[in-house]
Amino acid sequence: MNKQNTKIVLDTSIFVNPDSRQFFGKSPREALVGFIKIIKTKNNLSCYIPPSVYQELIKFTKELPADKDILIKKKSPASYQDSIPALLFYEFIDETRARINKGLRITEKYTRQGLKKEDNREAAQELIQSARQEYRIALREGILDSKEDFDLILVAKELEAYLATSDKGLIKWAQKLGIICLSAEELKSLIFNPRS
Amino acid sequence: MNKQNTKIVLDTSIFVNPDSRQFFGKSPREALVGFIKIIKTKNNLSCYIPPSVYQELIKFTKELPADKDILIKKKSPASYQDSIPALLFYEFIDETRARINKGLRITEKYTRQGLKKEDNREAAQELIQSARQEYRIALREGILDSKEDFDLILVAKELEAYLATSDKGLIKWAQKLGIICLSAEELKSLIFNPRS
Repeated sequence: MNKQNTKIVLDTSIFVNPDSRQFFGKSPREALVGFIKIIKTKNNLSCYIPPSVYQELIKFTKELPADKDILIKKKSPASYQDSIPALLFYEFIDETRARINKGLRITEKYTRQGLKKEDNREAAQELIQSARQEYRIALREGILDSKEDFDLILVAKELEAYLATSDKGLIKWAQKLGIICLSAEELKSLIFNPRS
Repeated sequence: MNKQNTKIVLDTSIFVNPDSRQFFGKSPREALVGFIKIIKTKNNLSCYIPPSVYQELIKFTKELPADKDILIKKKSPASYQDSIPALLFYEFIDETRARINKGLRITEKYTRQGLKKEDNREAAQELIQSARQEYRIALREGILDSKEDFDLILVAKELEAYLATSDKGLIKWAQKLGIICLSAEELKSLIFNPRS
């Protein structure tokens, strides 16, 4: 990547997560509009977003400046042509298997806790709530769990671009393919100081 | 594949599953020994097994004829070189996600059932038992859930070989890569009538 053309693939998390979007605006919409305003003045930046991720993003931001589609190009991965290393798939199978085992332990644990507790509405709500939370953390956090995430990885790989995201699962799997990930803070600093 | 050289990659299920092994012998050991005896007389057959799967197999069969290693070659996939289509990974992510969601529903269901049942030893055992079973079916059946399974697929792909297995998950994912799968019955019929 030279100074003339820094490519960045954008994830929704940059504009949606409160910790991330603060670098560009207060609300998701403000953050995205703010970002578009900045990149309008930067000729050495090319921004991309997979169409699937764009669909997610506009749920949060609604109406947008008309020039957004030129400034942030909708690029899908060539998924019918792309391939990935078999080793990545091995790791994914392995991680999925470990998580599924954890999920079973959680199911057993909460079934047992259910048996021990009295059956009233509050107890039930509380127990189900905490079962859900524990299950979600064990099975979803830090995992690549959507097609949209994989779109981002493939597009970043294909374009040899940076991937701007604050999603931990995405970062972990993107890094396995040698993709450089940027936090919102790093993205902002790169835009204003594009030396790489 | 010509008559001179029919390549077959062998899964443990062929010799271990009762429904499969009946075509070659009564016990896993008898089935494997029986199979080795047959292929000894067939010059047009090359049989392979990934080392990881071989380790599984010998847990069931123990001592084996000394010539087994020549007749069934231990072949690992070139996993550091191999790649797989991105689309396969998409499908796997999607299926995993759907199954993980199902698992959460099962966790909730059994937590609720726990609350409703009285806490005695028999009830607990019964409930945990059926939670386990339901979870396993929802999250594991028909999924590619081990490195050994993926070894089989990669070796079969690499060698352009048949894959002999009765594992439904394995068959489903191997077929996505164009691998021809053989049941134990089909394997037996191919050995005695190798016209393809």
